[in-house]
Amino acid sequence: MDIKQKIGKRIAHLRNLKGLTQEGLGYESEIHRTYIAAVETGKRNISVEALEKVIKGLGVTFSEFFKEEIDV
Amino acid sequence: MDIKQKIGKRIAHLRNLKGLTQEGLGYESEIHRTYIAAVETGKRNISVEALEKVIKGLGVTFSEFFKEEIDV
Repeated sequence: MDIKQKIGKRIAHLRNLKGLTQEGLGYESEIHRTYIAAVETGKRNISVEALEKVIKGLGVTFSEFFKEEIDV
Repeated sequence: MDIKQKIGKRIAHLRNLKGLTQEGLGYESEIHRTYIAAVETGKRNISVEALEKVIKGLGVTFSEFFKEEIDV
């Protein structure tokens, strides 16, 4: 699993924990639903600025986001 | 300080801890020295794939990289 896939999986995991749809997360993070979907499936090499929006939309911090799973 | 600047500062901090020059980190991470310099000064919105190379070049993990300072 490459870093894009690991990050995508982590976003999907946290989004599901929050009970958000991709559309809901898109709304929270001001990112289009289709881009969220592409990132979650590891298809996009997201930038740190866009990732920050998603992480804020998930209601976590960078350190919480990267606390686990990413380095596995 | 925006996320690009926070990440740049963190890279420079860890690079200095390792006693690496920007050129040395560029060599370790297979990224050009001038790009390292631009990221460290918060001028570039680095992607997660390129950030992974830098983080590996620094000899740390994502969780270690984001453990502190970024969320301050």
